[in-house]
Amino acid sequence: MDRKKDAILKATAALTENYKNEELFMPKNGRSLPSRAVIIDVVKELRAVIFPGYFWSDSAAGMFPEYYTGYRLNDLYDRLKEQIEIALLYANQEMEQQEASEQADRICGGFFEKLPEVQERLLKDVQAGFDGDPAAKSKEEIISSYPGVFAIYVYRLAHILYVENVPHIPRIMTEYAHGKTGIDINPGAVIGDYFFIDHGTGVVIGETTEIGRNVKLYQGVTLGALSTRQGQQLANVKRHPTIHDNVTIYSNSSVLGGETVIGENTIIGGNTFITESIPANTKVSAKSPELVIKKPRNAVSKADVWDWQD
Amino acid sequence: MDRKKDAILKATAALTENYKNEELFMPKNGRSLPSRAVIIDVVKELRAVIFPGYFWSDSAAGMFPEYYTGYRLNDLYDRLKEQIEIALLYANQEMEQQEASEQADRICGGFFEKLPEVQERLLKDVQAGFDGDPAAKSKEEIISSYPGVFAIYVYRLAHILYVENVPHIPRIMTEYAHGKTGIDINPGAVIGDYFFIDHGTGVVIGETTEIGRNVKLYQGVTLGALSTRQGQQLANVKRHPTIHDNVTIYSNSSVLGGETVIGENTIIGGNTFITESIPANTKVSAKSPELVIKKPRNAVSKADVWDWQD
Amino acid sequence: MDRKKDAILKATAALTENYKNEELFMPKNGRSLPSRAVIIDVVKELRAVIFPGYFWSDSAAGMFPEYYTGYRLNDLYDRLKEQIEIALLYANQEMEQQEASEQADRICGGFFEKLPEVQERLLKDVQAGFDGDPAAKSKEEIISSYPGVFAIYVYRLAHILYVENVPHIPRIMTEYAHGKTGIDINPGAVIGDYFFIDHGTGVVIGETTEIGRNVKLYQGVTLGALSTRQGQQLANVKRHPTIHDNVTIYSNSSVLGGETVIGENTIIGGNTFITESIPANTKVSAKSPELVIKKPRNAVSKADVWDWQD
Repeated sequence: MDRKKDAILKATAALTENYKNEELFMPKNGRSLPSRAVIIDVVKELRAVIFPGYFWSDSAAGMFPEYYTGYRLNDLYDRLKEQIEIALLYANQEMEQQEASEQADRICGGFFEKLPEVQERLLKDVQAGFDGDPAAKSKEEIISSYPGVFAIYVYRLAHILYVENVPHIPRIMTEYAHGKTGIDINPGAVIGDYFFIDHGTGVVIGETTEIGRNVKLYQGVTLGALSTRQGQQLANVKRHPTIHDNVTIYSNSSVLGGETVIGENTIIGGNTFITESIPANTKVSAKSPELVIKKPRNAVSKADVWDWQD
Repeated sequence: MDRKKDAILKATAALTENYKNEELFMPKNGRSLPSRAVIIDVVKELRAVIFPGYFWSDSAAGMFPEYYTGYRLNDLYDRLKEQIEIALLYANQEMEQQEASEQADRICGGFFEKLPEVQERLLKDVQAGFDGDPAAKSKEEIISSYPGVFAIYVYRLAHILYVENVPHIPRIMTEYAHGKTGIDINPGAVIGDYFFIDHGTGVVIGETTEIGRNVKLYQGVTLGALSTRQGQQLANVKRHPTIHDNVTIYSNSSVLGGETVIGENTIIGGNTFITESIPANTKVSAKSPELVIKKPRNAVSKADVWDWQD
Repeated sequence: MDRKKDAILKATAALTENYKNEELFMPKNGRSLPSRAVIIDVVKELRAVIFPGYFWSDSAAGMFPEYYTGYRLNDLYDRLKEQIEIALLYANQEMEQQEASEQADRICGGFFEKLPEVQERLLKDVQAGFDGDPAAKSKEEIISSYPGVFAIYVYRLAHILYVENVPHIPRIMTEYAHGKTGIDINPGAVIGDYFFIDHGTGVVIGETTEIGRNVKLYQGVTLGALSTRQGQQLANVKRHPTIHDNVTIYSNSSVLGGETVIGENTIIGGNTFITESIPANTKVSAKSPELVIKKPRNAVSKADVWDWQD
């Protein structure tokens, strides 16, 4: 038998055998998972409704926003509602279609009514970004380019659904933003107004984090848990820190633990590792490890080998 | 002459002159490089074959998986085989078409026969993720959303081709995942079962790294080399660490060097910088640098300047 | 009223009210912002002109590069020029269409004439990557796969427009690369030849950074500011470091401050935090914090809880 035919027959037989032996691979009882592609589309198109000057391609949008917005929301409502229904049915295999549909309608209605508030809060986040970043040329630049604003936008949408216990969808949303920006905000976090993340790559904000107003984070900041060795036993336990108002945390610092509180107006320097509470109105930095500066006998050349032992 | 015409004529002349002077810009002797777009498509579509409940859009997939899987694999085989052939011909400019085709068929056949094993191992990786992450709501969420699982999936495919010395394609695959997830796993690394990466942004796993079973890594972990100043002279030398079974390495830690071994059951705390071996069954943390906490005379105000010297 | 209708009417009314109350949401005086989608397309297609062997899908490209290049540049010129014009008109609401068009033509002409130089410099960046990375199998692999080369390519384009004070577009370009690679190079930075970034996720290079020739950076390196608490008052102040020729900065190190200078031939070890100048020809490392290694009475088990306090 030729190589290709042989390989495909073998692979198909074994893959389909695996489908049968493990229910995780296939739709369960004819019930599917929500569609990542549809959810991402909804997130993208809602952005065009919230910031019509930026992401709309239709020229009617600028001309008659009230018609356009209503028209777009109508379609987006149906698509999101269907996904919520699918997610509810999948997670609750006993639930009737009718009940799922009603629940999805209620949740989706609440979600859409909160969109204007999301819009207003994003404006505050953009303001915080402009005030806080000397490299920002304009607020428009922040809206159209800054990854932090995009990640916060997606988080603010996802959080509404997280609070309603919608399965799957909130995390699909925030992981989409994570992939685009390197900023990983768990939809369960609670985050106040005027929030700004600059640069952002590597930021992690854990599920039970609480953040006040006017907080600024830089790239590589982790607001995380002290330990996860207990795994699922820690589900629903407060394991991430609380950050009060007007705190700045500079790049690559970690603040860990569910009982760790950073008091208001406090500034955390870069590269610090904090596992205990810090009082309000303070400036914290790590005593930088002493630098070891060596002057080699000969100038370092391009071909030099240098490693940490010498 | 108008500005546009002038600029384009000049640019075209100089660009095409550059093409002639440097063979790197153009196909060599009529032989092309493999297509990044086709390789990425193959990676995406194989994911739908491995997890049919998640990424398939065709409803037949759920109904008759054996037909669908075989049908899809047939097409994917041809596309991957063609790319392997192209890659072999480009890298070995003396090789005959016939030889490249046979070698590509052999490699591609082996690759497809390993797919069921990849599927089974991914299930173990998902299990490790669920057991290890208190924020995970379900295994389905991990499969559909977690960047770590995606990066591991792509690495497991790429590694099969790396072992067969296929040029270009393994790295195109893992750099695609790197772009999507911020997780950079070199296809040469050797990684055991039940591997989990949480959050993941900034993780780097070097080419000669060896990782045992049941290992968990967090965001920002580097498993890297001590020095690269020798550049290509270090090619094929073991320069990245060995991590034994049941090790956890917390966020933003670096473990460096080809002779560095982390013994089994050991836990490496966050923000550590390790260049020597660590015995089994231990808990390692960096003695945190002393925190310097200053209470300014007046409360910190929003407009305050604060820098590291004061 | 049914849930959906009610929610959409309310949301539309409030969203459109917000559009009216805040000019930031909508086009201003009929003047739009540049299109992120078009700008990204131009960046992608210019890459195919610069590296025809890699990203061109048209087989004519390899056959008759001089025709193809000229043909492609003609179209790209018009598209980029239109975006520059849009950006100028939006940022200068008093500017006449005619003036914007002439200025855009001048800037676009200069941009296209610099493309061959960009091409030549990229070749040097690729050379530096190949010489510096023992995991690189070929220069072709670096061009087709390495995120560092992509980020540098986009930065080199964006910097030309930044120098001409084009609004919005330079940052849209570099943030596109940031999203794809995790490497955030501000278009204002000045970067010499033979520049290489390995792995790259988490790298941040601030707006007023100056980098010499033959410099190599690793993942997680920040070339940043000491403090940003003054926000916009710091605009146009030199606040990021200067890195001289032939410097290597290993992973996750930060070099901060506008007066901080790293002298030539110097090597900065991983995980260092530098806020003062370092002389030439030296090797710098942080005195690693002492490791605390604990041997628990019983072997660590999978279910063990371990946190930073114990």
